[in-house]
Amino acid sequence: MHILITGAAGFLGQRLLHRLVDRGELCGQPISRFTLVDQSEAAVPDAAGIAFDSHALDITAPGAWDSVLDGRPDVIYHLAAVVSSAAEADLDLGMAVNFDATRALLEGCRARELSATRLVMASSVAAYGGDLPETLDDMTALQPQNSYGAQKAMCELLINDYSRRGLVDGRVLRLPTIVIRPGRPNAAASSFASSILREPLNGEEAICPVPREQPLFVMSPGKVVEALVHGAEVDGEALGKFRAFMLPGITVSVAEMLAALGQAAGDEAVARVRHAPDPRIAAIIASWPARFDTAKADRLGFAGDDDFTQIIDAFVAEHY
Amino acid sequence: MHILITGAAGFLGQRLLHRLVDRGELCGQPISRFTLVDQSEAAVPDAAGIAFDSHALDITAPGAWDSVLDGRPDVIYHLAAVVSSAAEADLDLGMAVNFDATRALLEGCRARELSATRLVMASSVAAYGGDLPETLDDMTALQPQNSYGAQKAMCELLINDYSRRGLVDGRVLRLPTIVIRPGRPNAAASSFASSILREPLNGEEAICPVPREQPLFVMSPGKVVEALVHGAEVDGEALGKFRAFMLPGITVSVAEMLAALGQAAGDEAVARVRHAPDPRIAAIIASWPARFDTAKADRLGFAGDDDFTQIIDAFVAEHY
Repeated sequence: MHILITGAAGFLGQRLLHRLVDRGELCGQPISRFTLVDQSEAAVPDAAGIAFDSHALDITAPGAWDSVLDGRPDVIYHLAAVVSSAAEADLDLGMAVNFDATRALLEGCRARELSATRLVMASSVAAYGGDLPETLDDMTALQPQNSYGAQKAMCELLINDYSRRGLVDGRVLRLPTIVIRPGRPNAAASSFASSILREPLNGEEAICPVPREQPLFVMSPGKVVEALVHGAEVDGEALGKFRAFMLPGITVSVAEMLAALGQAAGDEAVARVRHAPDPRIAAIIASWPARFDTAKADRLGFAGDDDFTQIIDAFVAEHY
Repeated sequence: MHILITGAAGFLGQRLLHRLVDRGELCGQPISRFTLVDQSEAAVPDAAGIAFDSHALDITAPGAWDSVLDGRPDVIYHLAAVVSSAAEADLDLGMAVNFDATRALLEGCRARELSATRLVMASSVAAYGGDLPETLDDMTALQPQNSYGAQKAMCELLINDYSRRGLVDGRVLRLPTIVIRPGRPNAAASSFASSILREPLNGEEAICPVPREQPLFVMSPGKVVEALVHGAEVDGEALGKFRAFMLPGITVSVAEMLAALGQAAGDEAVARVRHAPDPRIAAIIASWPARFDTAKADRLGFAGDDDFTQIIDAFVAEHY
């Protein structure tokens, strides 16, 4: 079992890599080799009996995929992407990395007749937009209101068509907002969703820019990684007529998140969250869908978090 | 008012061209110039005071759009496409013509800062697919089950994103099945829908390969052309958060179509239709959605046919 991970130096890529190394197998086959791709060389774990090739690669360069696809990976995790703010700031960069490089990856598989290769791509809640219903489902239109979401939605269509034609065995998982991310606050509009939990747990202050009643659709990093593992193992045919679908996040309000924080770390932790409404961020977050009927993912055996307490407990268990 | 029409030699392109020449104006401006593009030179009508440039152009060639976009058209009708059977037979050709050439057209507009240019593209009912509800609406997902539909859906996302970014003023009309097309039967699965009316009206036999109760979502050529005209005239902002939507076809069963034929041309015309079920064609047609709530198009003032009798009467008035 040879696994290619793109975006392997990133938060999700590294977590996935370590989880797979711990497992030692995927799709019932022992893992013998990883090929890792990112802008800079991804860190390689210590693991006896597994070969690692870590490439620093500009995936937008012509022929960039040749060297890694010649190794004929059995499973490809395509996580490399320009994030939404960068794709919005630079249309050409977003198209080149998020769309053209994905298309070149598909073409590289096609040229090598890697029709049985399982290609797992991460898509996003950002692909949704427009006049959305209260609760979304697997047949809700993708009408993205940002270039990142448009590029991901185009990739979904392409991967579905290449899969339908038997050129590759694709599966696209739309990720909920990942909470709790480790590290520091960043420029993402969703940064607060991790920050208002992570910083108080560290004894630090955090700012909440959205109303307490704001609902979010979230999934823990651990469950996202399990979904990526399952995304490779699930039977492609079982995905039915479209290869992309939303993962089973859970819907929680900011108030519920903070109540769970209080249970885990006491009222003094909750008191470290300062409520300072930011209309710009509040508007962006309010435009994100927060309620999904994820019937397809449920049917396929993808599992989300039980509740928000579980998400906090998992973070505490891992980091403290 | 300078109008560019791609696919100008085709059935719709020629009808649109003649309709616009008859009108003499579009968006309240007198039409002074047409630029026509197709694989072979499109026929040019006789019209005093209007300049015509008819180009035979391979729109997949690098820089193909330069010569026509340098003329800075105010309105672009992008009708050029590889049809569904050809796109299914040749993925590279379909991607090149249906997707890459559309992207190059958008990039050409962007490079020339044609942000006010109104780009009207024809999309298709073929972009729908998957586990569809009984009645589709403006928020039903596009999960195409053919490469043509996937390419059109990708173009919709791209045109929407370029419009949202203010790089062009796009509007994409998803066309119902066009009935009654003139001419002869062809290889299209939908060919019978025109054939079972047109041939009997001509005193000829026709074959109906689908059950009498099969519903279809149809629009007459005349109403499609009126929709293309209106598609340029409608205010782009009024289209809301997504620039693509279904046109208001009408839902009719084969039995209702034949009853209308009988009213117009008598029982002897209906008797010329031989019912010879073809499971392959019947399956394709049965997979096409036939019922739509076209709220957005209705609100924007797009008008369909009143009933099927009107469609037949219009065809008879035009051709006999």
